[in-house]
Amino acid sequence: MHTVLNDMLGIEQPLLLAPMGNVSGGVLAAAVSRAGGLGLIGAGYGDADWLAREFDNARGQRVGVGFITWSLAREPSLLDRALDYEPAAVMFSFGDCTPYLPAVRQAGAKIICQVQTVAQARDAAAAGADVIVAQGTEGGGHGGARSTFTLVPAVVDAVTPTPVVAAGGIADGRGLAAATLLGAAGVLIGTRFFASEEALGHANAKRFIVDSQGDTTLRTRVFDIVRGYPWPEHITGRVPINRFAAQWHGREAALYSDLDRQQAIYRQATAESDTDTAVVFAGEAVDLIDAVEPAQSIVERIVTQAESLLHADRQ
Amino acid sequence: MHTVLNDMLGIEQPLLLAPMGNVSGGVLAAAVSRAGGLGLIGAGYGDADWLAREFDNARGQRVGVGFITWSLAREPSLLDRALDYEPAAVMFSFGDCTPYLPAVRQAGAKIICQVQTVAQARDAAAAGADVIVAQGTEGGGHGGARSTFTLVPAVVDAVTPTPVVAAGGIADGRGLAAATLLGAAGVLIGTRFFASEEALGHANAKRFIVDSQGDTTLRTRVFDIVRGYPWPEHITGRVPINRFAAQWHGREAALYSDLDRQQAIYRQATAESDTDTAVVFAGEAVDLIDAVEPAQSIVERIVTQAESLLHADRQ
Repeated sequence: MHTVLNDMLGIEQPLLLAPMGNVSGGVLAAAVSRAGGLGLIGAGYGDADWLAREFDNARGQRVGVGFITWSLAREPSLLDRALDYEPAAVMFSFGDCTPYLPAVRQAGAKIICQVQTVAQARDAAAAGADVIVAQGTEGGGHGGARSTFTLVPAVVDAVTPTPVVAAGGIADGRGLAAATLLGAAGVLIGTRFFASEEALGHANAKRFIVDSQGDTTLRTRVFDIVRGYPWPEHITGRVPINRFAAQWHGREAALYSDLDRQQAIYRQATAESDTDTAVVFAGEAVDLIDAVEPAQSIVERIVTQAESLLHADRQ
Repeated sequence: MHTVLNDMLGIEQPLLLAPMGNVSGGVLAAAVSRAGGLGLIGAGYGDADWLAREFDNARGQRVGVGFITWSLAREPSLLDRALDYEPAAVMFSFGDCTPYLPAVRQAGAKIICQVQTVAQARDAAAAGADVIVAQGTEGGGHGGARSTFTLVPAVVDAVTPTPVVAAGGIADGRGLAAATLLGAAGVLIGTRFFASEEALGHANAKRFIVDSQGDTTLRTRVFDIVRGYPWPEHITGRVPINRFAAQWHGREAALYSDLDRQQAIYRQATAESDTDTAVVFAGEAVDLIDAVEPAQSIVERIVTQAESLLHADRQ
């Protein structure tokens, strides 16, 4: 498939790997890039050693990197560390990215800004983003309240000619094809790649995604509370509901009251990859995910199915 | 456009008017049907005289009717009243429709069941629905939590060969085309038709929709509380935020405490069509709505744009 995104980012397929923290490492990012898309390493909450290791794991394959902007603000030098690896693109989400754009531009990398509202999209375009990712609330992990189906065309109308990438809820070729007709120049995919062989997550987490149902996910703050991450109040994380989420969602004050004890329980669960308690971020598209597969197979199937749908003979 | 929905419902375009209470009257329903789709009169909370008048207002044009199922359960004879008018189809939303299906079947009308989850879709298919509407949370008015972009393909996978209609967030040809590639056999459209000349709503409400932004809608119970409607707790109504919603959403206990006074204020605002206080149900797709137009123009533009997108030459 060829869109303006291919030319902008120098890729063969208009498909990006979401920079999932602790999931989108160098091996997965490289695999998505090798398959024709663009893999984005997830810089997460900013562990410099982790980031260096994962760039090394990409083994010279052309990849990009994605930051949580409010977290980067606590340690801005991480951006320079990343730029040393000459990423093809740098993506910013959740915060004001304008302070960082000159350095990215000077390094010759493309600027990708992820937004959750039309107003944020206008700001990102004005700030000089090369690509804007319009992220719908159905996506896994952190995000806002608006939905992909309405956000994408509204953002397209607001920022054209800047290319818009659809994110949130895309896990198969139907999603890529539909996003294209909504006006997107491509897609950014997270959850589907979490359930890939190359993803860094534990096998239990990947199994949890395969077994989850889209009817029983929710957006919650409880995992950020127990992990001690200061996310902005309006940004929540979508998860398939597990025991911990069922226990504490809507009871956040009680969780704060019992925080020390719950953090000890939570750390233990994380160490044991116990998905009844430890978070597995994943979106509503889990219904469309039936198996853990190699990233290349995922990319190929999505693109082939989308092309078939877009070129089908219709009455 | 031709899909299995056209044959199932005997229509020329795979496009249904959502049966919006107090908005989708006989004149609007007839206009959508005349334009090739199927207009559904909104039976709302069950005013028999209103329903009779609106069927009369359709003036013999072939239309359907849509019920709020939990409300119909309080006065089941309304269904018989509606069936006397020989509707082409009867749609049920928000509740267990199985008690009513034999009568609809016997009257020769098609059965349309609207659902908000995959589990509900399976139940509706098992109950014998002819058509299943998968309604995403981005839609205006009452609905659930799942999003159109992921709900539609998951429901299609769950209930094929029953035709699935996408609802929630569709207001232009991009939406119809994208829904088609997600696997839908057609679309059900509400908000876009609220802002039509034939809709029953007040001019202030239509203007409010045209002026609203998708970034500032929310799902809330405050208007059901002040109006005294016993909606199930998990079904909320999406509105562009007005002064009343901003004042009371998240403060529902306080609203209950002051209910008599607030109901008096609310009744007065309704009488005056004061959209700062009175509810205007509308979805996230308000960004795509720029003018109040005749229903026929809306249908024609949506279908023409969708066909153009679906038949475009692509690389």
